[in-house]
Amino acid sequence: MPGISKRGIEVPASPIRKLTPLADAAKAGGAKVYHLNIGQPDLPTPKKALDALRRIDRTTLEYSPSNGIKPLRDRLVGYYAKFGIDVSEKEIIVTSGGSEALLLTFMTCLDPGDEIIMTEPGYANYISFAVTAGVTIKTVTSKIEDGFALPSVEDFERAITDRTKAILICNPNNPTGYLYSEEELYRLRDIVLNHNLFLISDEVYREFRYTDAPYLSALCLPGIEDNVVVVDSVSKRYSECGIRVGMIVSHNSLFLSSVMKFCQARLSPPLLGQIVAEASIEGTEDYSRECFEEYRDRRDFFIDGLNKIPGVYSPMPKGAFYTVLSLPVDDAEDFCKWCLETFRYKDGETPAGFSGETVMMAPAAGFYSTPGLGKNQVRMAYVLKKEDLARALLVLEKALEEYNA
Amino acid sequence: MPGISKRGIEVPASPIRKLTPLADAAKAGGAKVYHLNIGQPDLPTPKKALDALRRIDRTTLEYSPSNGIKPLRDRLVGYYAKFGIDVSEKEIIVTSGGSEALLLTFMTCLDPGDEIIMTEPGYANYISFAVTAGVTIKTVTSKIEDGFALPSVEDFERAITDRTKAILICNPNNPTGYLYSEEELYRLRDIVLNHNLFLISDEVYREFRYTDAPYLSALCLPGIEDNVVVVDSVSKRYSECGIRVGMIVSHNSLFLSSVMKFCQARLSPPLLGQIVAEASIEGTEDYSRECFEEYRDRRDFFIDGLNKIPGVYSPMPKGAFYTVLSLPVDDAEDFCKWCLETFRYKDGETPAGFSGETVMMAPAAGFYSTPGLGKNQVRMAYVLKKEDLARALLVLEKALEEYNA
Repeated sequence: MPGISKRGIEVPASPIRKLTPLADAAKAGGAKVYHLNIGQPDLPTPKKALDALRRIDRTTLEYSPSNGIKPLRDRLVGYYAKFGIDVSEKEIIVTSGGSEALLLTFMTCLDPGDEIIMTEPGYANYISFAVTAGVTIKTVTSKIEDGFALPSVEDFERAITDRTKAILICNPNNPTGYLYSEEELYRLRDIVLNHNLFLISDEVYREFRYTDAPYLSALCLPGIEDNVVVVDSVSKRYSECGIRVGMIVSHNSLFLSSVMKFCQARLSPPLLGQIVAEASIEGTEDYSRECFEEYRDRRDFFIDGLNKIPGVYSPMPKGAFYTVLSLPVDDAEDFCKWCLETFRYKDGETPAGFSGETVMMAPAAGFYSTPGLGKNQVRMAYVLKKEDLARALLVLEKALEEYNA
Repeated sequence: MPGISKRGIEVPASPIRKLTPLADAAKAGGAKVYHLNIGQPDLPTPKKALDALRRIDRTTLEYSPSNGIKPLRDRLVGYYAKFGIDVSEKEIIVTSGGSEALLLTFMTCLDPGDEIIMTEPGYANYISFAVTAGVTIKTVTSKIEDGFALPSVEDFERAITDRTKAILICNPNNPTGYLYSEEELYRLRDIVLNHNLFLISDEVYREFRYTDAPYLSALCLPGIEDNVVVVDSVSKRYSECGIRVGMIVSHNSLFLSSVMKFCQARLSPPLLGQIVAEASIEGTEDYSRECFEEYRDRRDFFIDGLNKIPGVYSPMPKGAFYTVLSLPVDDAEDFCKWCLETFRYKDGETPAGFSGETVMMAPAAGFYSTPGLGKNQVRMAYVLKKEDLARALLVLEKALEEYNA
């Protein structure tokens, strides 16, 4: 039997992979599990988008152009303009989700052995895409006590070597919910410019910013027009994660023409998803505002509730719908397992049909590269309705009491 | 401005990339262009599949499982059983088209610098996926005078080194239309077994076999159960290339669990396409038979017509819907360009609204790795209806006459 590749061994399993069978078993045993572990929004997809899906009257579901259907790219130009981002449809390449956008960007910007710098805690799948591309990720640590703000310029400078080709940010941030300030983005700009690096900016949570500060995309940073690649996706924005429509946006035409060769090899992004995405972009302002308000209310309610639990600390995230928080436990992974395997909360309010309640969270250690960091932290997503969040907070508090007793 | 990666430079452009703007210009100039260059079937998608699309009543288009929705994998089990392939739903991983299936298979079986052996002429995008994965492709040449039969065992043995990890076949073959015999597949089995290699078998054209010989999938070869990976796709089978649904099928559980880690990183294959694919698999026997008969008739008609043109030679392909043929020219790429740039055929039968007719073909040199091979060859796909094929044959004959005059 032939052996699999080294990268096939090294590509990390999902941080919650070990917990998923435990959650399945808990559910099979009659428990109600509050999923605070995933970024799958519970909100509906815009009706306008679903209607467009039902109205598809093509007789052949054929390949779309490798860079995506033009009507979608045209709409995106208008969408970006609303955020002060001035791009043409030729500067947008549609991909199979933000995931493919990231992988193709890594492939095009870096060779095996090259290095990319990102902050930790960071989106765990960045590591997987880096292993896939043979690229080394070096991390600079953002700290919970600073609310996960951008690490200092000195920290970045220390991480830069002659193999460094790119800095990767996620803004607003998954997993921390941190939103970079204009000042922080200019600091990144200077580093990128001084060291001639790519700045890869994952902006899929652009809509979810809970502050009045003006929005600044990396694409708008002056003087580094050819350095910036924005990775984007309609998934979270319109609650349509399953359609797999993302995009790469850049002013760098050499970069784009190289990406296109990878895109031509894989022929095309998903046609049906593109039709849905195209219909999602315009005429959905009310939908977007309602989603935004819903998430903002959830954030206010949920973070406040978390910080009321003895020993729990969560910074107040300014964006996205995640937070990384510390728990009064030594080993958050053990606690997460215990919640699924052992703990069941039951009171007069237990939902009908369930024998008890528990919570599922993502241990934050999986979002750090530095061994030992984040051991008492978890990532939570507030993608449940408020009643469920309230109940999840209660269940979490009781679980901590019992675990620490 | 930071430079792009070496692989970003080396990933080859599509063999027809240079021709596409010429075809666009020809069309803009009023010419009718017969597209013999692409594998986009002109047949409709099954009505049952389109109906399923319109009946989707989900309110949230959420992530599907990383290995695909279970109803689709369950249906595929039944589909494969009809071809004598005995697999469980756990041995099937749904991907974003056959393209992603290929890339993930390369990533999992081979490390950068490892070698894969394939026959040339071969599907050009294999080279792109190899460059993406940092893998070296070594080719053994199949010859037009042998009808593109499998090269000898000695040819394969000569190509094998201590970095060789896999042999890649496409059966039935794109671009040649060759269908491997049982005896040839057993020969491959022995090589794979002797050298402990993976056998990656791209079987996306399984439905299109114009012979009464019993079908043999690589998955049915005895004694190499853990060596075989089948790459598959619903694209051509149901004329739904745009939905991007492919699959990896293998009995090797270690291989599958490694592929799954890559799959979890990219989250999920396209949900909507999976719903369409699921509906395509059962109750479409009449559709499949009609498609098959249509392609068989086209093949008989088209290959016969090609061989009647003075100086043209095409073997009779036993599968898929392509052929690689030789033309009475020294430089097929130059001839293909000339057809689009210069040549226009016009007679009393010129379709209304057009100022003349021409053909677009893919120069076959792009399907060879060995420099100089295939210079007088082109690949053609018979994915046009018979009247158009008849007209394309006439236009080609006239073009050759004028070019050689």
